[in-house]
Amino acid sequence: MTAEIPNIAVRIVLCEPTHPGNIGASARAMKTMGLNELVLVAPRQFPSAEATARASGADDLLESAQVVTTLAGAIDDCAYVVGASARLRSLGWPTMTPRVCAAQLVARSRTNKVAIVFGPEHSGLDNEALARCQALVHIPANPMYSSLNLAMAVQVLCYELRMAEFDPGNDDAGLVEQRDAPLATTAELEGFHAHLEAVMLRAGFLNPEHPRLLKRRLRRLFNRACLDQTEVNILRGLLAAVERSVPDPGRDR
Amino acid sequence: MTAEIPNIAVRIVLCEPTHPGNIGASARAMKTMGLNELVLVAPRQFPSAEATARASGADDLLESAQVVTTLAGAIDDCAYVVGASARLRSLGWPTMTPRVCAAQLVARSRTNKVAIVFGPEHSGLDNEALARCQALVHIPANPMYSSLNLAMAVQVLCYELRMAEFDPGNDDAGLVEQRDAPLATTAELEGFHAHLEAVMLRAGFLNPEHPRLLKRRLRRLFNRACLDQTEVNILRGLLAAVERSVPDPGRDR
Repeated sequence: MTAEIPNIAVRIVLCEPTHPGNIGASARAMKTMGLNELVLVAPRQFPSAEATARASGADDLLESAQVVTTLAGAIDDCAYVVGASARLRSLGWPTMTPRVCAAQLVARSRTNKVAIVFGPEHSGLDNEALARCQALVHIPANPMYSSLNLAMAVQVLCYELRMAEFDPGNDDAGLVEQRDAPLATTAELEGFHAHLEAVMLRAGFLNPEHPRLLKRRLRRLFNRACLDQTEVNILRGLLAAVERSVPDPGRDR
Repeated sequence: MTAEIPNIAVRIVLCEPTHPGNIGASARAMKTMGLNELVLVAPRQFPSAEATARASGADDLLESAQVVTTLAGAIDDCAYVVGASARLRSLGWPTMTPRVCAAQLVARSRTNKVAIVFGPEHSGLDNEALARCQALVHIPANPMYSSLNLAMAVQVLCYELRMAEFDPGNDDAGLVEQRDAPLATTAELEGFHAHLEAVMLRAGFLNPEHPRLLKRRLRRLFNRACLDQTEVNILRGLLAAVERSVPDPGRDR
């Protein structure tokens, strides 16, 4: 039976949700809009009777939900990851409206695994999680009271995904460029960033005492570019070439 | 302070909500999107500690919420009333997507009082309530599981209202026609329908034993037209003229 339902192939990832009711309500929100892939990163309490109660008839999504211990485990196979942000970040991460975000996700879901990542209720996504996101999505809210509930945010984005999938209008026109190769997955991007960091250290470009700001800016740059696999291969080939030609400072001492 | 917030002037009407938690969650959903006019028609339980808890910081909306006993008391001053419908009605009431609905409501809210009406959780709006709606709004949902929670439905529509108010794009282009006169209020329309019914009875056109289907079709017709006050005055003038020229069947007996 369920094979007949055209599901929207966008993964919903909840990072360290503290209220089990929000997990259940998120599952219900997803199922009403035709999504079925829920991943929970280190939930405080799960499974939970409260989650099941709030899920209503969507308890099958809770049963099939994956529970993982780290964000990496939730998105390593994804090629396009969007972080849900309750506030507009000062760092200038590319930020989309839910509508544009949904058009991007649906278009990219045709050929790639894609995900939206939500942070914990009270704190939102931390910088380490943001560093794995290609872009952010911000739900417009009353500036005097922007306290959108987690499951409500899931509902709004799942609704926009359904609209983008089945009633796209012209919103996605020209948004997604043509690619020769599949987008790189999170795991491939992490491999690239680790390689890049090693080369920067080796070249004396990255101060090992204060690496964070530089690394964050580089992640932002490459995330914004949405690298495909060919591009990652080219960059890593370049890094390997640099590596070979730069003396290892560890050996010099 | 609150005078500085540009509120979205769309009233949210909950008819006979059974779960106080949904009232609180609806208030929070409204406030996050910048709406502040909540009317409750015969709530099963209100005020309620559960409603206040779920409202989080939106308890001011609960305190200012109007509680009325009938739907008429909630919308009599409104000129454009949209009913939220969980299913697509077979009767062919004009039905909009949330996006089109929001554009219509925001545009009409500039010069008229407007409202969205939600039915009870399990049954939705009854035919009497539908008869007072100019149009319906249907939130697209998974046909295999369309069990959208009431407060979630409020959230999606309030989100679309905020998008329509502050980020309209081209969605509302050409949707709302120019008018010479303000739209008729629900009270004015009810006066017209009562007048129309009296004249139909008098003319022997309406079978008093089986009035319902005909009345419903006429309401649908006039609601779809979104009568303005000049038009209502014209129609009532016509009815009065007919009344004077048709003999009263009661007197003939």
